[in-house]
Amino acid sequence: MKNLTFVLAPDSFKGSMTAQEVCDAMEKGIRKVLPEATCIKVPMADGGEGTVQSLVDATKGKIYELEVMGPLSFPVQAQYGILGDKKTAVIEMASASGIQYINKKTRNPLITTTYGTGQLIKECLKKGVSKIILGIGGSATNDGGAGLAQALGMRFLDKHNNELPFGGAALSQLEKIDLSNLDARLHNVEIEVACDVTNPLCGETGASKVFGPQKGATTDMVDILDKALCRYAEIIKCQLGKDISNISGAGAAGGLGAGLLAFTNAKLERGVNIVINYTNLKEIIKKADFVFTGEGGIDFQTQYGKTPYGVAQVAKSENKKVIAIAGYIGKGIDQLYDCGFDAILGILSQATSLEEALLKGKENVERTIENVVRILLLR
Amino acid sequence: MKNLTFVLAPDSFKGSMTAQEVCDAMEKGIRKVLPEATCIKVPMADGGEGTVQSLVDATKGKIYELEVMGPLSFPVQAQYGILGDKKTAVIEMASASGIQYINKKTRNPLITTTYGTGQLIKECLKKGVSKIILGIGGSATNDGGAGLAQALGMRFLDKHNNELPFGGAALSQLEKIDLSNLDARLHNVEIEVACDVTNPLCGETGASKVFGPQKGATTDMVDILDKALCRYAEIIKCQLGKDISNISGAGAAGGLGAGLLAFTNAKLERGVNIVINYTNLKEIIKKADFVFTGEGGIDFQTQYGKTPYGVAQVAKSENKKVIAIAGYIGKGIDQLYDCGFDAILGILSQATSLEEALLKGKENVERTIENVVRILLLR
Repeated sequence: MKNLTFVLAPDSFKGSMTAQEVCDAMEKGIRKVLPEATCIKVPMADGGEGTVQSLVDATKGKIYELEVMGPLSFPVQAQYGILGDKKTAVIEMASASGIQYINKKTRNPLITTTYGTGQLIKECLKKGVSKIILGIGGSATNDGGAGLAQALGMRFLDKHNNELPFGGAALSQLEKIDLSNLDARLHNVEIEVACDVTNPLCGETGASKVFGPQKGATTDMVDILDKALCRYAEIIKCQLGKDISNISGAGAAGGLGAGLLAFTNAKLERGVNIVINYTNLKEIIKKADFVFTGEGGIDFQTQYGKTPYGVAQVAKSENKKVIAIAGYIGKGIDQLYDCGFDAILGILSQATSLEEALLKGKENVERTIENVVRILLLR
Repeated sequence: MKNLTFVLAPDSFKGSMTAQEVCDAMEKGIRKVLPEATCIKVPMADGGEGTVQSLVDATKGKIYELEVMGPLSFPVQAQYGILGDKKTAVIEMASASGIQYINKKTRNPLITTTYGTGQLIKECLKKGVSKIILGIGGSATNDGGAGLAQALGMRFLDKHNNELPFGGAALSQLEKIDLSNLDARLHNVEIEVACDVTNPLCGETGASKVFGPQKGATTDMVDILDKALCRYAEIIKCQLGKDISNISGAGAAGGLGAGLLAFTNAKLERGVNIVINYTNLKEIIKKADFVFTGEGGIDFQTQYGKTPYGVAQVAKSENKKVIAIAGYIGKGIDQLYDCGFDAILGILSQATSLEEALLKGKENVERTIENVVRILLLR
């Protein structure tokens, strides 16, 4: 048997293993059957949680910590990564401005701010990076990215020329945007925003109506926030000449997408495509005999931009075989066989609580992959 | 691709699916990928629970019901099967004399009887069968098979020539066995006992000491029962000239093995081998490209006579590839790769309670087997 090459490109298994750990467990499983096999490990992500870890692992970069302002203005300990090329930063906005910092008592999307995410960007600019990858899932905010802009030197003023307080609600009083102190380094940095939603900033399918409630917005709050973001778009249009009110994806992360498009030269792109690009996955996959991917959960929604789907697409473009594994296999996976997945297997060894299953992730991945390879060798 | 032939030879998945149902789900999974494949379904068992159902399904036989005396002398509704050849009966002794008829309050191995199992045998004799397969797992009894013999006409007498009451403890008073009314048809019937244990009737590794406690025997009861069974063996030796005290397997099912060996021409054999024989598995497997087997749970103990192991042995003797599936994958399955199993996969789709997992058995088998076939076709 010739020396087989496996490309291992899983996402993290949330709550159980980082993508790197999944890669390592996959490799162990393969080597139990084929000690001499070539295993190329490409820890993946889709722009959501784990993206910093995966890209740092994939490029042998480094993770840094920084205390920034959290969504409720209290300090939080956030993280960002600098990739192995030392020129590219990767940030998950949730690390600074995420919903995990809010509880049922404190949640109030009228006042939550993306200021801390702006501070992370500023820190990366200070480090002299030329590119920033920004994952924007899991936000606690609905401020249109105004806080982020403030952290980078912008001022949002009311009709008395007073600076607005933090939060989306205050934008209803917006009269003027002062860009004079905006960090000039922003112009020289490429910002790629990992954005998988297509919602516009305002209206029925806008940030406030669709995502506000999951951040704690009542019906009244949704109205206040939607009107405030409309006002925000209006002032931006008048003063900067950019119409962000109807751009697909501008409503992502409480309108952070809109702010980024208005004040920076950010581009929105599918998260997994960004990761595929920075990990050089397409080139790597050319060497594969088989591609193994996976994620904590796989179901019909996987085809809407999740990591295993992105990996499968790249693999199929190179005519490679793709086998996916998951801890949770949900409804509709039949649809996935038609779009790049050759096989999909669950990894669990027994009926068990989720907590137990998460603890056994590594052994379950190893055992399942070992047996996949055993089956591959049968013919 | 040539038309592949799959032999499907799983045990039941206890509490979830009969072996026939597992076969059907496997076939469905195969046909989703290879609609034209040949699927030969051989529902299997190992002499334990499900053996009647599997052999009846495998041979297109029939299951019958009969009210008999339960282990505590109350009537119970028992089952037995007549195989498709109409000459062979299959009985699970637990159906008449099983531990499931006992609860914590009522358990008392001093008095439980195998009488009901004898009634099932008598009924089969009445039907004119020439062979009886008897599975003896799950018994509530410790009577050395005396009850079974009583149902078939034997009498066990004390020194006053009074008949002994039911149960193992009474055998301490045994003085004389009266065989004059023993059902003569017993001499013309072949009895194959599915027996996977090697324990002798008495002593440290005997029926009472090893299996008594799980039937509710206290330390005192164990002593009483062990002595009574020694007495039983003694009288049998004196009167019938058969020494059953040290025969391997005589201690199975509370000494039922001993009684069968003493009073009938029963042969003890590994359960799965009996089933393999009656299902003609070895001949069938010759046609297979792949053999799929499985059981509710698989672990290192599987190699001690469980169905998937038996199937794997037969398959290997014909140089066939064997893939096993299970709901529960326990410790030490690495040992199984060295004895006939090419691959072993779990079927679960998510972290879940056992109850939920049991309910989803069919879909999980179908999906897993579908993906096994998908992987088989990759090379």
